[in-house]
Amino acid sequence: MKIGILISGRGSNMTAIVEAVQSGLIPESEVAVVISDKTSAEGLIKAKERGIETLIVCKNGRTREEHDAEIIGELKMRGVELVCLAGYMRLLSKDFVRAFPNKIINIHPSLLPAFKGLNAQRQAIEYGVKLSGCTVHFVDEALDHGAIIAQKTVTVKDEDTPESLAVRILEHEHPLYVEAVRRIAAGEIEIVGRRVVSVKN
Amino acid sequence: MKIGILISGRGSNMTAIVEAVQSGLIPESEVAVVISDKTSAEGLIKAKERGIETLIVCKNGRTREEHDAEIIGELKMRGVELVCLAGYMRLLSKDFVRAFPNKIINIHPSLLPAFKGLNAQRQAIEYGVKLSGCTVHFVDEALDHGAIIAQKTVTVKDEDTPESLAVRILEHEHPLYVEAVRRIAAGEIEIVGRRVVSVKN
Repeated sequence: MKIGILISGRGSNMTAIVEAVQSGLIPESEVAVVISDKTSAEGLIKAKERGIETLIVCKNGRTREEHDAEIIGELKMRGVELVCLAGYMRLLSKDFVRAFPNKIINIHPSLLPAFKGLNAQRQAIEYGVKLSGCTVHFVDEALDHGAIIAQKTVTVKDEDTPESLAVRILEHEHPLYVEAVRRIAAGEIEIVGRRVVSVKN
Repeated sequence: MKIGILISGRGSNMTAIVEAVQSGLIPESEVAVVISDKTSAEGLIKAKERGIETLIVCKNGRTREEHDAEIIGELKMRGVELVCLAGYMRLLSKDFVRAFPNKIINIHPSLLPAFKGLNAQRQAIEYGVKLSGCTVHFVDEALDHGAIIAQKTVTVKDEDTPESLAVRILEHEHPLYVEAVRRIAAGEIEIVGRRVVSVKN
């Protein structure tokens, strides 16, 4: 399975996926390309260090559709079959979602459907929940809305700040995201309605 | 601490609280009265069997405010300091909430703020979450919205129906609700903004 990963920043989830592929934890797979929309993304260096091809595709004043069209082209050209968003800070156009139906996944730092959108950890702290966590989900045309593949709980402590909670959630994001990619690569899950269930043998 | 419990049905959380008080798990407390708005509530029998005074206060075509006024009167007359909703199927009026500020608590079968309102377990199944659970919270004037005291996760299985999920969540509701009442009785928690935190000694 050829994987393409989109980043905008440090790309820690990208690194976790690359290392899981390279160590054989995600079998019969390859990270074909890491694409950033930001020249400054620290993750680009980490990807290069691990021998992965990197590309920078900036928006440069174009429309979302034009920008996405270039990214779609680069991914298709490399035969990418699964697109992983890893801290990619742009909404995807409908064209992008339709170009890879049920083949784009994302990780979000809350227990969806709670706390969609930006600053999910701050939203959780301000609401006063006792449990938050992270969610790996398929990407559809609505924000943080697609079918849920996996979720992991993280306890919110009295003394937590959005920053301290983000750090603890991030530790759980990496193994959760890797396991979700592994299950997709292994053909272990399927989507029924909007529920993701294990394939029955 | 004198506790009043409001029910509409079987009152399994009511029974759990009564037994925790009577066994000394919730110390220096007493369940002063169990009030049902339904003549048919099975929980009434369970409360009587455990030696608790029961009252039936039906709405009888009155406004919510009139109905609530009678219940408030019965609770105040008995010196109730904490009101526990246990499957009480009516929204409280603003008057009710204001008569017992930060002294009314409820349990809801989801990880709030996800899946407020009726049929929370069905909502969770239909959304396709992998984790749901239950939440004990203070009651304010908005539906399932008040400050959160405690939450507990329950894993949603591929084969779950709303009914099977409800059964598993209910098992976790009882100890979660009891522990929340115990912490309030023991003066262990306080509300800061809309966060419930442990009182520092």
